Amino acid sequence: MEVLVPFDAQDPNSRLAPVLTPEERRAFAAEMLGDVLDALAATDADPTVLATGPVECPVPVAVDDRPLTAAVNARLDAAEAPLAVVMADLALATPVALERLFGTVGDVVLAPGRGGGTNALVVRHPEFRVDYHGASVRDHRETAAEVGASTAEVDSFRLATDVDDPADLVEVLLHSEGRAARWLADAGFELVTGDGRVRTEREG
Amino acid sequence: MEVLVPFDAQDPNSRLAPVLTPEERRAFAAEMLGDVLDALAATDADPTVLATGPVECPVPVAVDDRPLTAAVNARLDAAEAPLAVVMADLALATPVALERLFGTVGDVVLAPGRGGGTNALVVRHPEFRVDYHGASVRDHRETAAEVGASTAEVDSFRLATDVDDPADLVEVLLHSEGRAARWLADAGFELVTGDGRVRTEREG
Repeated sequence: MEVLVPFDAQDPNSRLAPVLTPEERRAFAAEMLGDVLDALAATDADPTVLATGPVECPVPVAVDDRPLTAAVNARLDAAEAPLAVVMADLALATPVALERLFGTVGDVVLAPGRGGGTNALVVRHPEFRVDYHGASVRDHRETAAEVGASTAEVDSFRLATDVDDPADLVEVLLHSEGRAARWLADAGFELVTGDGRVRTEREG
Repeated sequence: MEVLVPFDAQDPNSRLAPVLTPEERRAFAAEMLGDVLDALAATDADPTVLATGPVECPVPVAVDDRPLTAAVNARLDAAEAPLAVVMADLALATPVALERLFGTVGDVVLAPGRGGGTNALVVRHPEFRVDYHGASVRDHRETAAEVGASTAEVDSFRLATDVDDPADLVEVLLHSEGRAARWLADAGFELVTGDGRVRTEREG
């Protein structure tokens, strides 16, 4: 399975700005990308990082500085085989979760993200195109129906958890021992449990 | 599989107070309970609602006004067979997701909730007891290890989504056509997509 991993090389995970400096966000995003590539490496995926600028990583990088939707659709235009798209901030992704995605039957297979996003998908229909704006999982269901593509969804908490909000750091510390989790621990983040929801605090 | 569904009959889903009156919260919570019971009815589960007070519903109700942890552990003390616990605010639960939970091998099978909770679990070990305070999924892993129980986790977005925060209403409208989703639509809630995250608004 060919897999695109879109990656913002300039200003990644901007919603983490309240808790990380721009430089830290770039470093943390690179660790999350590393986690996603580690998980993909344990599957039969053939990944390409689709980046807005140069990135150092162990798989091929295609640079396209257009917005996400246009850059992905250009690859769908050119695709001659099934193509998967897996977001780079899925720090909880595991080989098992990704294999469930790749192995699910359907012309379009969606892994919904929390809040209406589409965190990962597989496209096996020549006319389907993405639109990541708004409630994209709903729009992708409708687009698939319009072009006559069958759809299926993968029910995965790990794939639903894109780490782009300070509250999401809790999930990384609770459910991963990978690169991003180690980076957070090294940066002083730790879990705090009190009377309300679990949260993270940073030493220092 | 015997399944307990704990339900707060007095002040359910208190974090929804910013968007629902106390009376509306009780009505919405009853609809979510209905969704969970509908999903369980399509499995081979044998459900009991473990409520803090009287509830009208189509399955047996056991009333226990103690806090959640004490009430569940009293049932575990008395259990002679595997016992599952499924929270009543899992409005996105489906028979397939619940069957994945019940069918997973392990002395203790955990379905993590977002933010460190334990939204559902199966207990097949005589010494394991729950503690829902704090980051319970982490604590339950540790407790299982302490009593020598094997653990497994179910990776499900549907089971990870307990609807107890205004932001969670988005998930109900996007991923369910059940009782709670219809209640929200009838109450005037609809999805709003803009430049940021998808959210709900209520017609006024």
